[in-house]
Amino acid sequence: MLELRLVQGGLLKKVLESVKDLVNEANFDCSAIGFSLQAMDSSHVALVSLLLRSEGFDHYRCDRSVSMGMNLGNMARMLRCAGNDDIVTLKADDGGDTITFMFESPSQDKIADFEMKLMDIDSEHLGVPDTEYQSIVRMPSVEFARICRDLSSIGDTVVISVTKEGVKFSTRGDIGTANLVCRQSTSVDKPEDATIIEMNESVSLTFALRYMNSFTKATPLANQVTISLSSDLPGVVEYKIAEMGYVRFYLAPKLEEEEENETYATNRPPQAETKPLVEPKTKLESKSEMEIVSVEEVDNVETGKAKPKLEMAVVPVEDIDFVESKVEGEPKSDVANSSVEEIDAEEVKPKVEDKAEDEVMDVER
Amino acid sequence: MLELRLVQGGLLKKVLESVKDLVNEANFDCSAIGFSLQAMDSSHVALVSLLLRSEGFDHYRCDRSVSMGMNLGNMARMLRCAGNDDIVTLKADDGGDTITFMFESPSQDKIADFEMKLMDIDSEHLGVPDTEYQSIVRMPSVEFARICRDLSSIGDTVVISVTKEGVKFSTRGDIGTANLVCRQSTSVDKPEDATIIEMNESVSLTFALRYMNSFTKATPLANQVTISLSSDLPGVVEYKIAEMGYVRFYLAPKLEEEEENETYATNRPPQAETKPLVEPKTKLESKSEMEIVSVEEVDNVETGKAKPKLEMAVVPVEDIDFVESKVEGEPKSDVANSSVEEIDAEEVKPKVEDKAEDEVMDVER
Amino acid sequence: MLELRLVQGGLLKKVLESVKDLVNEANFDCSAIGFSLQAMDSSHVALVSLLLRSEGFDHYRCDRSVSMGMNLGNMARMLRCAGNDDIVTLKADDGGDTITFMFESPSQDKIADFEMKLMDIDSEHLGVPDTEYQSIVRMPSVEFARICRDLSSIGDTVVISVTKEGVKFSTRGDIGTANLVCRQSTSVDKPEDATIIEMNESVSLTFALRYMNSFTKATPLANQVTISLSSDLPGVVEYKIAEMGYVRFYLAPKLEEEEENETYATNRPPQAETKPLVEPKTKLESKSEMEIVSVEEVDNVETGKAKPKLEMAVVPVEDIDFVESKVEGEPKSDVANSSVEEIDAEEVKPKVEDKAEDEVMDVER
Repeated sequence: MLELRLVQGGLLKKVLESVKDLVNEANFDCSAIGFSLQAMDSSHVALVSLLLRSEGFDHYRCDRSVSMGMNLGNMARMLRCAGNDDIVTLKADDGGDTITFMFESPSQDKIADFEMKLMDIDSEHLGVPDTEYQSIVRMPSVEFARICRDLSSIGDTVVISVTKEGVKFSTRGDIGTANLVCRQSTSVDKPEDATIIEMNESVSLTFALRYMNSFTKATPLANQVTISLSSDLPGVVEYKIAEMGYVRFYLAPKLEEEEENETYATNRPPQAETKPLVEPKTKLESKSEMEIVSVEEVDNVETGKAKPKLEMAVVPVEDIDFVESKVEGEPKSDVANSSVEEIDAEEVKPKVEDKAEDEVMDVER
Repeated sequence: MLELRLVQGGLLKKVLESVKDLVNEANFDCSAIGFSLQAMDSSHVALVSLLLRSEGFDHYRCDRSVSMGMNLGNMARMLRCAGNDDIVTLKADDGGDTITFMFESPSQDKIADFEMKLMDIDSEHLGVPDTEYQSIVRMPSVEFARICRDLSSIGDTVVISVTKEGVKFSTRGDIGTANLVCRQSTSVDKPEDATIIEMNESVSLTFALRYMNSFTKATPLANQVTISLSSDLPGVVEYKIAEMGYVRFYLAPKLEEEEENETYATNRPPQAETKPLVEPKTKLESKSEMEIVSVEEVDNVETGKAKPKLEMAVVPVEDIDFVESKVEGEPKSDVANSSVEEIDAEEVKPKVEDKAEDEVMDVER
Repeated sequence: MLELRLVQGGLLKKVLESVKDLVNEANFDCSAIGFSLQAMDSSHVALVSLLLRSEGFDHYRCDRSVSMGMNLGNMARMLRCAGNDDIVTLKADDGGDTITFMFESPSQDKIADFEMKLMDIDSEHLGVPDTEYQSIVRMPSVEFARICRDLSSIGDTVVISVTKEGVKFSTRGDIGTANLVCRQSTSVDKPEDATIIEMNESVSLTFALRYMNSFTKATPLANQVTISLSSDLPGVVEYKIAEMGYVRFYLAPKLEEEEENETYATNRPPQAETKPLVEPKTKLESKSEMEIVSVEEVDNVETGKAKPKLEMAVVPVEDIDFVESKVEGEPKSDVANSSVEEIDAEEVKPKVEDKAEDEVMDVER
């Protein structure tokens, strides 16, 4: 028996709107810890990790940990039928194949039940390592969304460079180039307007703007966004959900080509294109799938290439990237979900994980 | 000579916007009683009945009753050129083939004349019987519009069931099912927020959401909507126009298939599909045309099937459904329009009409 | 070295939005006088003339007069990335092939540089004669935009007729006709709501609504619009830019066909279609190109047709229409720009220009 009640039901609408375009179908995991989701986008370049902690709900009953496969588009369609002030309750019976969304108007005069069929979805739970990032930028989420949108009118990729002066967003396209610098600003009237840069080491990474723009659909969830960057690691764009948890988006950086290198990434040594270590089980079908594989630094480490920044910031090789955990197969079966990550980017600290995982992430299935 | 002046000209804009998508072309009838329109939609499933009483106009001159054929889309295009605060005057000469819409800005600094050609439109005036409905629901029009829109994201039809507890709107589609219950609520701060249920008998009818959504375009006309339902009669969705009249939409219910019956309509006895008694003059071209015919209960009564609810609520057979009156042919000719219905749903009472009509409605022409 | 700083940067965004749909590519001229643009639309029916005077900028440095070819769509895309409160600075090096738009947020926390490549664009600078117009109408810009939009829902052209009573806008289309009269109104509370008509002679001209609607994209620039009309001269639609200059749109009137003449232009003598005097260098490709040629009254004057109004209002033949000046060829070369017109419609007075131009406008290139 599952029964999760959230008085502030509008929140759940915003959560779904923020992830539904990136991920079509995914398993929601419900355990004593909370209601969570982890899924890659269809091109396997980005990973979404969502956590709504059990304490954040007004009523939380989850007798047994359960994984429920849902079509996120359909779920969003149903949640859109909830009023912004409605109380939303999620209900599911043990072993049932449906989930019910109940919407109650504040006056209790209108009550709606939406019942959705669950799906069988193959899932592999990827362990996201807890690591210290070279640079962490916190800034107004609206500002970040505006920057991503603006740069998209000029180019396809953004180079995010963090230095002591501030964070620089750059792009280039057929019609010209654009550089946007946001300076650290802590002494603002409202905390949500602050831009705060924690820099251990300067870093410069290139990302596809298409994904960044998709992530910014989570802007209504939080006033501030946190961008965590380390060379050769997926970047993390995090929106905290007040008193409940977070939505985190992980995005593999693009390999900078030599030409781009010359222009933007002047504060980094030239770098050869990394090759995927792990051979995909099946033939790679799209270029974008290769991108996520390319962030696995195993290759470079093994070939002995100097990776000073990597060694400083990161921990055992197996933990550098998304690592496949054992959760697979049977959806809707009960799953001990204690492995759900609970990293809080606000307290990022070096942490060596010594549990060795069997298998490095394999993006094919 | 026709001259109708309405200081609150924005009202006429709203009226046209509410009906133009349902009916392309129709005859407006102008008589001493008022300015009215009655027309079926192109698929003959829904009927619109509009009345703006002469007393509601700031100036009303209609020397002779007249019927004027207009393209409602074009009329709406012209009315859209009126400011919301403009005074609108309709003018037509006796025997002329145009109508003029005059818009005066409140300051009288801007005056516009839009002249539109009239059309010859074949019309048959359908008598709508004054009957007592089994259930009448009054609720906020915005709420009803929201419900129809929400359910449309799940399914194609809505089952409206009225019980003592409240009114239930249900649908089902590929992605799941939805049930919305609105409870009676009379003790609200504002009368326009009330939901009031007058139930003589519980009723459950199925309607196409496509039409319901079209009707809700009249939402800006009134804070409340009245839904009147009786088994085997067209449902009525009425928006009152303050101090002037109403827009009423009549919609033939869909025959519930057995499968649907089992799921939703549990408080009704199973019911065979009714067949049209009257043979259409020409071959039926679309399934939807059959739907309107199917609400004529003549067949069932003659075949002796038990119809307890029907017999209680309704009067002579000829009056059960829309009945064709004698008005036909010559549009723009003067027509004694005393037969325009003036039913006011607020004073619904049993009323036996003893004038026998010659011919039961024939939807073909 | 060019450096133009405008604290009120949102203004530049509005300017670009107002012209970018009419003109794809054009040369901006920068001199001691100001930052200006003059360009015809691609069909050579309309001419845009923009002036931002140097005094209006917060900082204005222009070492040498320069002409810079830009794609206006791309320029607008870059300017859209500026916040409405941002300070905008335009920078270009002498002889460089790029221009930089710098956007500074009011708090100086965010600074953006957008660099755009310049283009080589063939240009001919058309001299616009300073003339006295038969009628000048000043009215709220929002009102004018609304009228053009409303009439577009009925017809394709607008006849603008100025008489002592007011200004009349008329159109006709398949669904009917429309006439809108705006009366002179000077005693209004707010000056920006006034409609002021200066009429030396009544005038009635026909214009394509498509262009008028395009001009009204400048509405956000000014509360009032000035429409200057003379028979057989291009009409002028002007939006003043507070303390800086103006955007002016010149539009060749359409030749009224006999049929139209009968209906609308009853206060003008019938008039034969004028033929272009100057043979285009290359074959005319579109009907619209002929329209601009047709406003050259040279033909009629030479053939001796009576043109009373023309003779009264206008000056030497060479000045009647846009006259090609000597500026041509090398874009991005320095050009003495003293010939930029500085007509201020507020001080329209008879003025005989005695400088003879070599060559009457040739719309082909």
